[in-house]
Amino acid sequence: MNNNKVIDLSHVINENVTVFPGMELPIFNNIEIDGYREKKITMYSHTATHIDAPYHVIKNSKTLDEFPIDKFFGKALMIDCKALSGQRITAEFLMPHEEKIRQSRFVIFNSGWSHKWKSPTYFKDFPTLDAAAATYLTTFGLNGIGLDSISLDAVDDDALPNHHIVLSHDILIVENLCNLDAIMHDEFIFQCFPLKIEKADGSPIRAVAIV
Amino acid sequence: MNNNKVIDLSHVINENVTVFPGMELPIFNNIEIDGYREKKITMYSHTATHIDAPYHVIKNSKTLDEFPIDKFFGKALMIDCKALSGQRITAEFLMPHEEKIRQSRFVIFNSGWSHKWKSPTYFKDFPTLDAAAATYLTTFGLNGIGLDSISLDAVDDDALPNHHIVLSHDILIVENLCNLDAIMHDEFIFQCFPLKIEKADGSPIRAVAIV
Repeated sequence: MNNNKVIDLSHVINENVTVFPGMELPIFNNIEIDGYREKKITMYSHTATHIDAPYHVIKNSKTLDEFPIDKFFGKALMIDCKALSGQRITAEFLMPHEEKIRQSRFVIFNSGWSHKWKSPTYFKDFPTLDAAAATYLTTFGLNGIGLDSISLDAVDDDALPNHHIVLSHDILIVENLCNLDAIMHDEFIFQCFPLKIEKADGSPIRAVAIV
Repeated sequence: MNNNKVIDLSHVINENVTVFPGMELPIFNNIEIDGYREKKITMYSHTATHIDAPYHVIKNSKTLDEFPIDKFFGKALMIDCKALSGQRITAEFLMPHEEKIRQSRFVIFNSGWSHKWKSPTYFKDFPTLDAAAATYLTTFGLNGIGLDSISLDAVDDDALPNHHIVLSHDILIVENLCNLDAIMHDEFIFQCFPLKIEKADGSPIRAVAIV
C-alpha cells in the first residue's frame, strides 16, 4: 500500500464555493495573533465535497460518528453514466455491473458533472437514480454511493426519495466528488473519512482514491 | 490494501472539546428545515486532531492546499516516548531509530498524553523535542511529525521554536492524535488528509492508521 498512488477527489473550499441552491456560503475569518495564523471557519456540514449520514434525512437514525471507521474506506466500483445526461439511471443500466458491485463497498457514479462546478448548469440535468435503481443498490450491503454531482436526487425534488431509500439502509452518500477521470481504473480503493463531529448529520471531507 | 485494518486516531469534536488554552470552543448550530437536518459549524482551523501548515507560523510559506495530496499519506514510524514525561526528547534518544526514520514519511510520538485529554494535566509536562532533536528530524525529508499531545512546543513557549524549525522544512505537524496504542505495530501507514480549504494554515482532520 505504501507505493500506491493517491488521487484527490475533492473540490477546493473557499467563500465562493458552489453550494446547494439556498445554502449559505462558508466564511473564513483569518486571524493573526502573536506571530501565528489561524482561521475561524463557519461552514455547513454539507458544504463542497461531503458525506451524508442517515440522520440527514431520517430522524432516529444513525449519525456519522456512530459508524465504525472502516465504513468510510473500501473497494469501489466506478460506473460511467456520462451518456445519461438529463436522464434517469435505471436498474437495467446497473445490472450488467452486478458481479462487480457485489465485490465492492462503494459505487461511484461518474457523470462528468464536476466539470460544470461553478456554473448554474451544475444543478441541472445531472443523471439521477430512478426508484428501482436506488432500491436495487440497497441489495448489496454497500457502505456508500458517491457522485460527482450536487445530490442523489434532482435539485427540485424536495422529497429526497433516493436519499430516503439509500440512507434507510445505512448506505452513506458522498456528493460533489471531482477528478474521477484521473483514476483511470473502474476499481480502486475509495476513502471518505468524515470529521469526528458528535452527532454529525454530514461532514465536509477530503475524499481520495488509492490505486 | 482492501483487507487492511483501519484504526481511528482522532478525538471526538463537540462543544466541550479540549482546546489550546485561550482558544474559542467550536459551536454547532443544529438546523432542521423541510425534513432534513444540517449543522452550521463554527470552528477554528486548529481544533481537536488537526494538521499545521508552515503558514501557521511562517509568513510567505506554504498553506496546506499547496502540497500534493500524497504529502498527507505514507509510511510512519511510531516512537514510544512515555518514559520522558516532563522531559525533553533529545537527538540521542532518537538516534537508535535512525534507520527506520530514514525509511518513513512520518514520525509519530506516542507519549501516552491522549489519556489526559479533557483534563488540565493534558497541557502540562508532555515530552517535547529539544532544538537539537527537532533539527535532527529535519534531515530525513519527512512529510510530517505526529503527536498525541497539544503541541510540538510546550504550552507556555510562545516563541514556538520547534514549530519554526520543523515547519520551515515543510514538515507538517499533526497534533492531538489519540488511540495510538491500538495500532500495535511501530510501522504502519499514516493518513492526515486535510479539508481542501483555500490558503489553509491548518485543518481539523480525521487521522487514521492503516495496518
